[in-house]
Amino acid sequence: MSKRALRMGRRPGDPEVTRRAILDATRTEFAEAGYERATIRAIAARAGVDPALVHHHFGSKEDLFVTAHEFPFNPSIVQEALGEGEGTPGERLARSYLTIALQDEQIEALIRSAATNDVARDMLRGFVQGALLDAFEGQIEGPDARLRMALAAAQLIGVVMMRRIVGVDAVVEADVETIVERVAPVLNHHLGRAAG
Amino acid sequence: MSKRALRMGRRPGDPEVTRRAILDATRTEFAEAGYERATIRAIAARAGVDPALVHHHFGSKEDLFVTAHEFPFNPSIVQEALGEGEGTPGERLARSYLTIALQDEQIEALIRSAATNDVARDMLRGFVQGALLDAFEGQIEGPDARLRMALAAAQLIGVVMMRRIVGVDAVVEADVETIVERVAPVLNHHLGRAAG
Repeated sequence: MSKRALRMGRRPGDPEVTRRAILDATRTEFAEAGYERATIRAIAARAGVDPALVHHHFGSKEDLFVTAHEFPFNPSIVQEALGEGEGTPGERLARSYLTIALQDEQIEALIRSAATNDVARDMLRGFVQGALLDAFEGQIEGPDARLRMALAAAQLIGVVMMRRIVGVDAVVEADVETIVERVAPVLNHHLGRAAG
Repeated sequence: MSKRALRMGRRPGDPEVTRRAILDATRTEFAEAGYERATIRAIAARAGVDPALVHHHFGSKEDLFVTAHEFPFNPSIVQEALGEGEGTPGERLARSYLTIALQDEQIEALIRSAATNDVARDMLRGFVQGALLDAFEGQIEGPDARLRMALAAAQLIGVVMMRRIVGVDAVVEADVETIVERVAPVLNHHLGRAAG
């Protein structure tokens, strides 16, 4: 380990490992502390590196937030759900989204931060309007397609809120698959997909 | 106006008017600034009173928050929706809740604050588990009654998130009644109520 690496507090090994450790620490810190209270110092401490290193590689707290949270999930799961496959579209969408969202800190962190911070809110709004509504509007038949897609997203985001943020007992204790079964018909209703 | 009232910055008139002005200012401040950034000083400025007066009557920022937000809405609307009336239970519940929640800052403030503050989160959790799940569980037939009620609440809270916090275009621009029509069957589904 070089003197410089030691001075910077860098851990031995691949820079990519360090980078990933910092991004993981960022998501954890934002999820736990919220945007306002999160600090570069705390993120660096979680990742076991020097704050100056974090700042050097990622810039400001805001830059770091955007880099760590660019996609709350991959929109390809919507494409896959709307295509052919086993079960209904609502079932496939609920399963692939909730399997990620109910376990992943990244989506929780974004929702949490969007509630109090304009940068995070703009990012989440941009994601919902761009990567979801604009991207899939043409595949949804009937009137109010954008509204109905947003209401489907509202059901899913509400479940994440109830489970990971508010911590309502019945939602925390339920199996993901039980929630999927209850939520799938709601998504089919909003998206105008047959239940069969 | 007495010297004391002047010194305290109290406005002339009924103390109840002042009290209500402070509570309104509290909800506005928490809705706009979020729990962490809200201050007694800013609340007092909004209400046009001295910060010392706010502190004297309501105690800490935390106390003030709890007093101003004790009920995000009156649970009697659930009782009324589950009883007899025009339209389906889901329609009545969606209409009475969303008519309040999409316009009222109080519910927005509570959701916003619950995302980053433990006091607010515990209050929202207590409200959902106590005033909703415990109170109405016995009126919902079938398995997973608590979970299904929480999923209905998740749909409604998600709509408020999308409209007032994230600001997704399609939800912001929609008539409340259009949203009610789209959301009512979801509530009937979760609550096991007939659609007819």
